[in-house]
Formats: sequence, structure tokens, C-alpha cells
Amino acid sequence: MEAVDHLAEERNRAEFDVEEMKIVWAGSRKEFEVSDRMARLVASDPVFRKDNRGILGRKELFKNTLRKVAYAWKRIIELRLSEEEASKLRFFVDEPAFTDLHWGMFVPAIKGQGTDEQQQKWLPLAYKMQIIGCYAQTELGHGSNVQGLETTATFDHETDEFVIHSPTLTSSKWWPGGLGKISTHAVVYARLVIDGKEHGVHGFIVQLRSLDDHLPLPGITVGDIGMKFGNGANNTVDNGVLRFDHVRIPREQMLQRVLQVTREGKCVESNVPRQLIYGTMVYVRQIIVADASRALSRAVCIATRYSAVRRQFGSQDGGVETQVIDYKTQQSRLFPLLASAYAFRFVGEWLKWLYTDVHACTAGLKSLTTSVTADAIEECRKLCGGHGYLFASGLPELFAVYAPAPTFEGDNIVLLLQVARFLMKTVSQLPSGKKPVGTTAYMGRAEHLLQCRCNVQKAEDWLNPSVVLEVFEARAARMSVARAQNLSKFANPEEGFAELSPVLVEAAVAHCQLIVVSKFFEKLQQDIPGKGVKQQLQVLCYIYALNILHKHLGDFIATGCISAKQASLANDLLRSLYSKVRPNAIALVDAFNYTDHFLGSILGRYDGNVYPKLYEEAWKDPLNDSVVPDGYQEYIRPLLKQQLRNARL
Amino acid sequence: MEAVDHLAEERNRAEFDVEEMKIVWAGSRKEFEVSDRMARLVASDPVFRKDNRGILGRKELFKNTLRKVAYAWKRIIELRLSEEEASKLRFFVDEPAFTDLHWGMFVPAIKGQGTDEQQQKWLPLAYKMQIIGCYAQTELGHGSNVQGLETTATFDHETDEFVIHSPTLTSSKWWPGGLGKISTHAVVYARLVIDGKEHGVHGFIVQLRSLDDHLPLPGITVGDIGMKFGNGANNTVDNGVLRFDHVRIPREQMLQRVLQVTREGKCVESNVPRQLIYGTMVYVRQIIVADASRALSRAVCIATRYSAVRRQFGSQDGGVETQVIDYKTQQSRLFPLLASAYAFRFVGEWLKWLYTDVHACTAGLKSLTTSVTADAIEECRKLCGGHGYLFASGLPELFAVYAPAPTFEGDNIVLLLQVARFLMKTVSQLPSGKKPVGTTAYMGRAEHLLQCRCNVQKAEDWLNPSVVLEVFEARAARMSVARAQNLSKFANPEEGFAELSPVLVEAAVAHCQLIVVSKFFEKLQQDIPGKGVKQQLQVLCYIYALNILHKHLGDFIATGCISAKQASLANDLLRSLYSKVRPNAIALVDAFNYTDHFLGSILGRYDGNVYPKLYEEAWKDPLNDSVVPDGYQEYIRPLLKQQLRNARL
Ligand SMILES: Cc1cc2nc3c(=O)[nH]c(=O)nc-3n(C[C@H](O)[C@H](O)[C@H](O)COP(=O)(O)OP(=O)(O)OC[C@H]3O[C@@H](n4cnc5c(N)ncnc54)[C@H](O)[C@@H]3O)c2cc1C
Ligand SMILES: Cc1cc2nc3c(=O)[nH]c(=O)nc-3n(C[C@H](O)[C@H](O)[C@H](O)COP(=O)(O)OP(=O)(O)OC[C@H]3O[C@@H](n4cnc5c(N)ncnc54)[C@H](O)[C@@H]3O)c2cc1C
Ligand SMILES: [Ca+2]
Repeated sequence: MEAVDHLAEERNRAEFDVEEMKIVWAGSRKEFEVSDRMARLVASDPVFRKDNRGILGRKELFKNTLRKVAYAWKRIIELRLSEEEASKLRFFVDEPAFTDLHWGMFVPAIKGQGTDEQQQKWLPLAYKMQIIGCYAQTELGHGSNVQGLETTATFDHETDEFVIHSPTLTSSKWWPGGLGKISTHAVVYARLVIDGKEHGVHGFIVQLRSLDDHLPLPGITVGDIGMKFGNGANNTVDNGVLRFDHVRIPREQMLQRVLQVTREGKCVESNVPRQLIYGTMVYVRQIIVADASRALSRAVCIATRYSAVRRQFGSQDGGVETQVIDYKTQQSRLFPLLASAYAFRFVGEWLKWLYTDVHACTAGLKSLTTSVTADAIEECRKLCGGHGYLFASGLPELFAVYAPAPTFEGDNIVLLLQVARFLMKTVSQLPSGKKPVGTTAYMGRAEHLLQCRCNVQKAEDWLNPSVVLEVFEARAARMSVARAQNLSKFANPEEGFAELSPVLVEAAVAHCQLIVVSKFFEKLQQDIPGKGVKQQLQVLCYIYALNILHKHLGDFIATGCISAKQASLANDLLRSLYSKVRPNAIALVDAFNYTDHFLGSILGRYDGNVYPKLYEEAWKDPLNDSVVPDGYQEYIRPLLKQQLRNARL
Repeated sequence: MEAVDHLAEERNRAEFDVEEMKIVWAGSRKEFEVSDRMARLVASDPVFRKDNRGILGRKELFKNTLRKVAYAWKRIIELRLSEEEASKLRFFVDEPAFTDLHWGMFVPAIKGQGTDEQQQKWLPLAYKMQIIGCYAQTELGHGSNVQGLETTATFDHETDEFVIHSPTLTSSKWWPGGLGKISTHAVVYARLVIDGKEHGVHGFIVQLRSLDDHLPLPGITVGDIGMKFGNGANNTVDNGVLRFDHVRIPREQMLQRVLQVTREGKCVESNVPRQLIYGTMVYVRQIIVADASRALSRAVCIATRYSAVRRQFGSQDGGVETQVIDYKTQQSRLFPLLASAYAFRFVGEWLKWLYTDVHACTAGLKSLTTSVTADAIEECRKLCGGHGYLFASGLPELFAVYAPAPTFEGDNIVLLLQVARFLMKTVSQLPSGKKPVGTTAYMGRAEHLLQCRCNVQKAEDWLNPSVVLEVFEARAARMSVARAQNLSKFANPEEGFAELSPVLVEAAVAHCQLIVVSKFFEKLQQDIPGKGVKQQLQVLCYIYALNILHKHLGDFIATGCISAKQASLANDLLRSLYSKVRPNAIALVDAFNYTDHFLGSILGRYDGNVYPKLYEEAWKDPLNDSVVPDGYQEYIRPLLKQQLRNARL
């Protein structure tokens, strides 16, 4: 194997220290080191190969995942990996599996909603994987509306048990990952019923399968819900269906951190803050924001490298053609996504340490980052032209895996409506003099923001954080205030909210975009070592902001935040910033430090050796096992020979 | 089987004559009748079932397609179907296959580029399918830039033959559908070389496989390029790779309608208009626009019906919940897509009869309609919440099948740049007094359009075709003229074009959207019988236009076409139009007249009986063949029993 780097020239052009940027991207030198080590560990181990995912049938695919999971766990034990290392290792194995739900939902649910005793009992079992758990909330008939769940948990005074039951077809649990074939236990959400009275929806630990032979316990019907989007993708996960026929569990298995049911069947609320019940949700959404930047950066890495390899048009007399990354249209589609990857990375880091308006903020950012990322993966595929449509490009599967993110853990529109509600409340409280804090602190300056004028006069004037921030704040504030005014015209506020919901969602988006922009600028105020590193991030930050300004121009101009002329100057500047990114583009995606194994894309190969590898890969398809395909004798030959009429098909 | 119609109430609410709307959608009573008959024929025949596409491996999937194709052809012969009927039947079989390329590209290429003699020789063979052909243009290294293709066709004086050759790896043909495993012949595009001199890229009929045993002929290496996006989707097609090692064909097999090569090796241009060489391309793009409305309407049909079935939130004390179609956010996402389906249908019909600026127009509309449709299918999937992600919803596969449309037959950005070039040329010729015609006729009124003011004062003022049209014309004209002015500031026009390309693309989009809006209004000027039919179409037309206005608000306001106040009135009107559509929504998608077989979606079932059928379907997944999954003994049991350390994995 020759080790030519077709992108070496590109790498030489970089004007910044890539190694330092890798540290910034990773979060710290230590995180970089762990990630790097785990990524290599996975990449170098043939058990973790994943290039065959596209051609495996459902059963083989699923079994293969079980094998990888078991093997990964074995390695984790053998190598005595820390929790952090283990979780990175699982991440780089890059195969959706039941373990994602065990570690990502089941364990956090017990941690967040279980009492100390419950945690002491269940967590050690879960940590050692002596039990495997999933998170069973959604039902066939209810997802977004958790309060509408139909499964019941009825207290039986006599036996001191809860009876878990599925009263209707639509009450069947439906979707929980890991449920269909693997989980031995589940946190099941059900309506608590005591003496015929309902006490809301709560979580219950329910054993589903025997620990001896894995058979479902009496009263439990459980299975897989079938194929989902894509061929590999999330079909490695056994999203499941589950029905209960009066299944009994001890009273102690209700997660009781917030509400306790006594032996007498009395409900006692604990003094733990009520928000704690949302703790798991908030935690999971923070993870989702972090994952967004990972998925986005991965797609961008593929599209950027391939755009530098791909040449099309522009040659004079048979000379070498133009790299498609040099086309301004390509740049205007690609570089804002590159900038978004960095922007989401930083806002995700910031989110981890957030303590005020956590709920609205995680909801809004979950919505914003997942919507943008899902669309961006598709855009990256299109940026790769026809070859992006090949499974071998990695992009179809990345998309199919990512596609549900805008839906799960809170449908993005439903979440934005919650953010909008929070904003309307904030605006309505302004006259009372109550100063908003946290991410809505800018609303406290509403008076100024409603009448300030942007004084950009030439393109470079936009290169000023306070100018950009004020424009974004003014836009967000004006949109919220205008909507609040329109709302106040309705006699019935709820009707008004429903009627105006499409534009309320837009105000919520404006607010969330402001958060991302402002956190990016905040990041730039930190000390960032390394030659040219901060400069590159500055360029990306402006690209992120000015691209939004261009894409949502109507918002900015209609609210009078900027003039048409100023918008046009911003757009000129944006194009010139693309030229600044151009020589650094490859290095900026190298900074993600993704192995070829993780990228899983021939188009995104580090060495740019795309064409020979595509050619090689093609022949591995099962269809190429024989020169004349299966079915020729029965169906093609009679067709060509005009003998179909009498054929039995 | 009970025959309950869960959507009956919805259907009763419709304020127009659905049967008449079906005729409008179909194009004519005759077309309706043929479509309807063919759709039922397919739907009622078990050979054409397609619900198993998601779980078949590549080989089974492919073989199954060969079987369906052969069977369809047999039925076509047995029933003596007309060409029109046969093509409808193939459409409703709804399985991408090599025949799409045979009928859709190979035959039209010969028709368009072959001489009369060539047509007489080859078409009868193709019509009877005694030969099967494909269209081999794209190579591993070149797609968009057809002039950059590397395959050569060198004239050999001695033998009166062309020698077809692949000089490099990147010259391998790559992508042609039907090539990989099935086609016996291909129209191969190659650089014509005579006596060392190049004469551009031309098409050549090349036999690839023996008609006796289907083996590739000497000098030909051919195979499938491997898995593509999705599990079923286009993996039923054998997109192929093809290399030539000095393959000889008679001189007569060059398609010579435009350029002829004589026995002496001299090139003689015929007097056939040069555009004819683009004839196939134009024809194919017209088909693609028609297909866009079909794919879009199909996704919209699924999402609309399911949105009426799905209920979430809004119940008072356990009463029935709100249908999600009643949420204004849902409407604002869904109804513009419904309107677009109708808009694209009408512009597609109009396009068939177009004779002026055909090239720019088909290019632009191909780009606009395919981009919107691809995004819209994804949006429809999201509108269905979690269940949209199930293969059984039909939407993932619809998306995976449709995803390449923005790329093939001309990358959408490359096409928009061509439209932009055409627009810039049109603007530059205005001072000469040359009146633009066809779709750019409005540019002739540029002087007026550059300074006219919209005089909308209340929301209802927008309900006026000439008001809406003028605003769209003004926007398109102002965007084009402003770009032309910016271009003129560059010393080198090509450099200017490259630099400004991102905003030039936006001007092209504005122009194309204007075409769609104006053709919709033109359609409404026709006599349209049937109670309430025209009224419904009027509402949809305004929704189509006003939604664009809202989504591209920046364009309209920044160019001063409308004021912020007028925009806000338009948006108020838009919301009120959604309420008008709401009671008719189900009937408006019923008018597409799609069978459940064609829709292929449990969520989109005509009878709305979603939940029991989803539940039933789940159990058919191969993973549910056994209660304890394959792999439990090897991988899960040792994990649970803490015996992994010694396991051999
Ligand atoms: C791959 C995948 C994995 C999953 N894993 C799990 C899991 O492990 N455990 C689990 O419990 N669940 C899981 N889920 C389920 C998931 O959480 C739900 O699908 C999600 O919460 C969305 O709910 P829904 O499907 O009911 O959507 P719906 O609420 O039915 O959404 C349908 C449409 O209605 C709209 N809508 C709904 N309510 C409103 C409103 N009030 N106002 C305006 N519009 C509204 C939505 O915007 C959407 O357009 C998973 C789902 C998927 C796809
Ligand atoms: C499913 C499928 C079926 C197909 N079937 C056939 C078939 O039957 N026969 C056949 O011959 N071919 C077929 N093709 C190939 C198809 O026609 C090409 O993929 C298509 O023309 C795009 O070309 P490309 O792949 O070279 O894209 P590229 O040109 O490589 O595009 C890559 C990127 O570069 C950009 N770009 C390229 N040129 C410019 C420019 N001048 N200015 C600005 N940006 C530019 C594009 O916008 C895109 O973002 C098929 C492809 C697919 C995916
Ligand atoms: Ca498969």
C-alpha cells in the first residue's frame, strides 16, 4: 500500500496550528488524548469493522451488533477502562445499539428519579450489566403528550404491589430502544392509580425477561417494531413493542424520588425540587446537542475533503480542472455548515454547566441543533454530487441514523412552542420591572433594543462582536415583543397562542440562534493558544452569524434592525470570509481528528484517494458475486427471446 | 375484515366535488380513467406486492425486481396494453428498475440523436425488448462536466470502425442504471477522435453482452457499483461500472443525427438544429418535473391523512384529543406542501407544450421542483412524528428513492447557474430594445417593475392575481437587474460571475418561482368544472405564493417590492387560508387517487386504520421469528452472567 496523501498540498496551505485546534475541538488536552486513544483502539480492531453494514439482512445485522457490544464490553473490562474511556470507546464503535439506551436512558432515569435506596439497589446491577434496561415511555398512541399515556400502574393494597397494565391497543409501548429483543428490565412510564384516583404519570422499574432463559415473564408480550429508515442505520437497535397483562411489581419499584406511595397507598411528595423529574430529560438533551456537533462535523469533514478531491469544469485545454471547493456556490453551502459544527460544539460545552432557565434553553438548543444537523447532513450529501448517494460515501447512513433526532426526546416544533411560551412569559413580566436573567437577560434592555439602529456603513464594520450581537438581540427582542403584542389582542390567550403558533416558533428560533452566536463570541474571549487558532475561529464565528443574517434576512429587515444596504454589505463580507476559510478548510476538518474508520466514508478518506477505493469497493457487492445475475435464466432470457407469454412467473 | 372508514367524517366535510378534482389532477377524464384502471390492476395482483422490500437482501431484492419486470411485460402483452397504458402500469408497479432507463433514456436517446435509418434499425428491437439498453454518460471522474468525459471513440480508417476505450480509471463509466447486470446495449458517450483530432463528445450504440449467454463481450468489464441510499429504494436498480479495452463497433453505430462521420473519416454537420442534441435532456427533465409532483403529492397524502388520524394533547378531562392537523404549526408546514404538489402538477403539464427558452426553463424547473420535493418528503416524515421513521410509513423509502433527483440529470446548482446566465444575458440585452419573450417577457417591463409599488393596504388586498404576480415579477426583475449591475463592476465578467454565483443562484430561484406562480394563476383562468373545485385551487394558489413570500421575505422587502406591514398582512391572510383548506385537506389528497398499494404506507391508509395495522406489521419483522433472538446464547447471556472475560468473540 502506497501512502500518498492526495490532500497534502491542501494541508500545507493551512494558516494555523492544527494540533492546537484539535485540543480546542476536543475540549481539553486530556479529552483529546482519551478520544484519540479510544478512536485508534477501535479503528485498529477488525471486530469493529462496519463497512459491511449496508448489505447485511436484519437478523445478521442485529446479531453482528450484539457481537460488537459484547466484545466492546470485554475489552472495556480487560483494559480496565475508566467510565470516560468506556463511553468514548462505545462512541467510536459507532454502531447504534441497545447499550445506548441502557447507559443513556435507563441508568440516568434511575439516577435522576430513584431514591438513594433504589439507586443503591439497581445501579450496581446496571453498571455491571447484570441487568440490561431500557426507557419505556412512548406508546403507539402517545409520544409528545406524555401526560396522555394510557398504561396504568394500579396500587393493590392487599399485596403491596403495583399492577402494570395496557388497557388498549394504543397503550402498547412502542419505540423504546433495546426493548424488542434484549432488555431484561425497563423503566416503564404509567399513570399511577390508587383507589380509582389518578396521580399522574410516573416511572416504574419492571422486569421483562427471565434472567435465566431470556423468555418474557408472564403477562408480557414483547417484540421488535420492524424496519426503520435506511439499511444499516438504527436497524441495529431493537426498538420494541410491549404489552402488559396485569403484571405485578413490588411497590418499591416505583421510582420515588419525587413522589412516594406509602404502604397505606398514600401519596407523599418529597421536598426534592419538582424540576428534578425533568432532570433526565435535560441531561439527555444536553447530550443530544453535543451529538449534533459530532454528526454535523462528520458530514462536513466528508464533504469538505471530497470537495477538494473532486474536480469539475474550468480546465483550459485539457489542463487540470477546478476543485469544486473553489466554486463560490459550493463554499456558500459548505462553509456555513463548517462554522455551525464549531458553533454547536461550543454551545454544547457551555450547556453542560448551565443552571438558569435550563429547561427552555436545552429544549430550544436541542431543537435548533438537531434540525440544522439533519438538514446539513443531506446538504453535505448533495455537495458530493452523485457519489454522495452511494452507501460507501457514508452520508446516506449518517443521515438515516440521524434523521429521528428532530423527533425523539421532544418533537422540535413542540419544543420550540415551549420556548415561545417562556419568551412570551418573559416579555409579559417586563413591565413589572422584574429583570430577566440568563439567556433572556437581553430582554432587560428591551427598551433600547426596540429602537436602536445599526450603524454599519461599510462591510468591515460588521467585523465587530458588539455590532453583530446587538443586531441579533434586537431581532430576537423585536420578534418576541411584536408577537406578545399580537397575542394581547386575543380575548382568549390560549386561542391566540394557538393561532399565532407558526410565528411564535420563529421568535423562538431567533432567540436560540442568538444564544449560539453569543456563546461563540464568549468562547472567543477566552485565551486560545496556538498559532492562528483564534483567528480561524473568529472567521467561523462571523460566518455562522452572517449566514443566519442572510438566510433570515426578512426577520432582520422587517423589524428594522438593519437596512437593505447593510444586509448587502454583510453578504459581501460573508463571501470574502469564505475566501479566508478556503485555504484552511481541510485543516479545519482535520481538527475533528476523526479516523477513517469512524468517518466510514470513501469520499472522506484522510488521504483523498477516492477513485481507486470506490472502484475497489464496488466489486464487493453481492450482486457482483456472479457475472450473470441470479434471475437471468428465469426472467431476462425469456424476455429477450420473446418467450414470456408462456412463462410461468 | 371490517370496512370502517376512520376518515369518513373528514371526507364528509369537503366543500368541493372530489371526483371532478381527480380529473383536474389527472389532466383529463381519459388520463384519469387509464391511471385508475392501471393502478387497480397493479394493486390487485399479488405479484406486485412491495411491502417486503425493506427486509430483502440485495440479491433477493434485485431478483424480485427482475421477476416483477418480466411479469409486468407479460401482462402488457397479454392485455394488449397501449403505450400509454403500459407506461402507467410500470409507474404504478412503483419499483425502480432497469426498464426505467431502457424506456426513459435509451429509447429517447436513439429517437433524439439517431438518424432515421438508425431509428429504423434499433427502435423496433428496443420496443420489443429484444435488446435492453441503458444510458452511459457519467464516469467515475466526470458527471456535471460532460465535455470533460474521458472515454474515447477513435475512428479506425482501415476497418471503418470506432474503437471505444477507457484510458484511465476515472474514465470508467459509473452510475448508469441498468448497466451493471442487465443491459445488453448502451448508448455510450465518448470523445470522438479522428486522426488524432478531437471532435467533442457524442453518443455511440455499443453492445455490451452476448444475446446468447449474457456474458460481457470481449474487452468489456462491467459490474454493479454497490449499495446506495436506503434498503429497498434504488437498490433494485443495477447502477453500473463499465470499462472498455479497445472495443470495436461499426461506424454506423455512432448516433449521427447531428454530426456524421463519413467513410473517409470526415465530419459533416447535418442541418438539424444544434439544440436537438439537448432534446433528450429536455425531454427527460420535463418528465422529472412531472415526477416531482407525483412524489410530493404522495408524501403529502400520507402526512395529511395521518395528521388527521393522529391525536395529541388538548383533551379536557380524558375527552378526545386534538387531531394534530388542527395545530396551526402543523398546517403551516403541511398545507404549503399540498399547494406545491398542485402547483408543480400544473407547471409540469404546461412544460410539456413549451417551445421558447425551453432549455433554461426545463433546467430551472427541474432544479426548483426536485429540491423542494426532496426536502418536502423529509418534512412530511417529520410531520408524522416518530412513526414516520418506520419503514412501514413509506416515507423513508420514498425519500431514499427520491434523494438523487436534485443531483442526477444536472446538479441543481449547476442548472441554476445556467438559468442565471440566461437571465444576465436577458438583462444585458434590454437596452438594445430587444423584447424578451416567453418566461422572461416580464423583463420587457423592467422599467415599470423596478419602480412600481405594491398598494396592498389590508390582508384581503392580497387576494388579487395581478397584485401577487406583479410583486413576484418585481422581485425577480429587481434581483436580476441588481446582480447584473454588480456584475458590470467586474473587469472580467467570468470572474464576476464566479464571485457572485451564490446570489446569482438566488435570482434564478426567484425567476423559477415566478414561473410556477404565474402558471398556477393561468390554470385558474381556464374553465374548471365541478362544485367548488376552482375555489379550492384558488386557495392553494394563494397559499403557494404567499408562503414563498413569507419564506423569502428578505428578497421581497430588501428590494422594496413590499413593506414590512404588507408582508405581515400577507402572513395573516396565509394563516386564514389554512383554515379554509383544513376541512378540505383529506379530500384534496384523495383527489390524487392513489391506491393503498401505490402509497405503500400504513400511516397513509385510505381508511385511516393506522394503529391495528402498525401493530400487525411489526410482528412480521425477521427479528420476531424467534422470541429469544439469534446471538443471545453467544453474546447476551455471557454478558449478563459476567462470563465475557473468557468468552471467544
Ligand atoms: C428512532 C427512535 C427512537 C426512540 N426511542 C425511544 C425510547 O427509547 N423510549 C421512548 O419512550 N420513546 C422513544 N422514541 C419515541 C419518541 O420519543 C417519540 O416519537 C417522540 O417523542 C415524538 O412523539 P410522537 O411520535 O408521538 O410525535 P407526535 O406528537 O405524534 O407528532 C406528530 C406531529 O404532531 C405535531 N404535534 C404534536 N403535538 C403538537 C402540539 N401540541 N402543537 C403543535 N404540533 C404538535 C408534531 O410537531 C408532529 O409534527 C423513539 C423514537 C424514534 C423515532
Ligand atoms: C441514482 C443515480 C442514477 C444515475 N443514473 C445515471 C444514468 O443512468 N446514466 C448516467 O450517465 N449517469 C447517471 N447518474 C449520474 C448523474 O447524472 C451525475 O451524478 C450527475 O450528473 C451529477 O454529476 P456529478 O456526480 O459529477 O456531480 P459533481 O459535478 O461532481 O458535483 C459535486 C459538487 O460540485 C458542484 N459543482 C460542480 N460543477 C460546478 C460548477 N461549475 N459550479 C459550481 N458548482 C459546481 C455541484 O453543485 C456539487 O455540489 C446517476 C446518478 C445517480 C445518483
Ligand atoms: Ca437490507
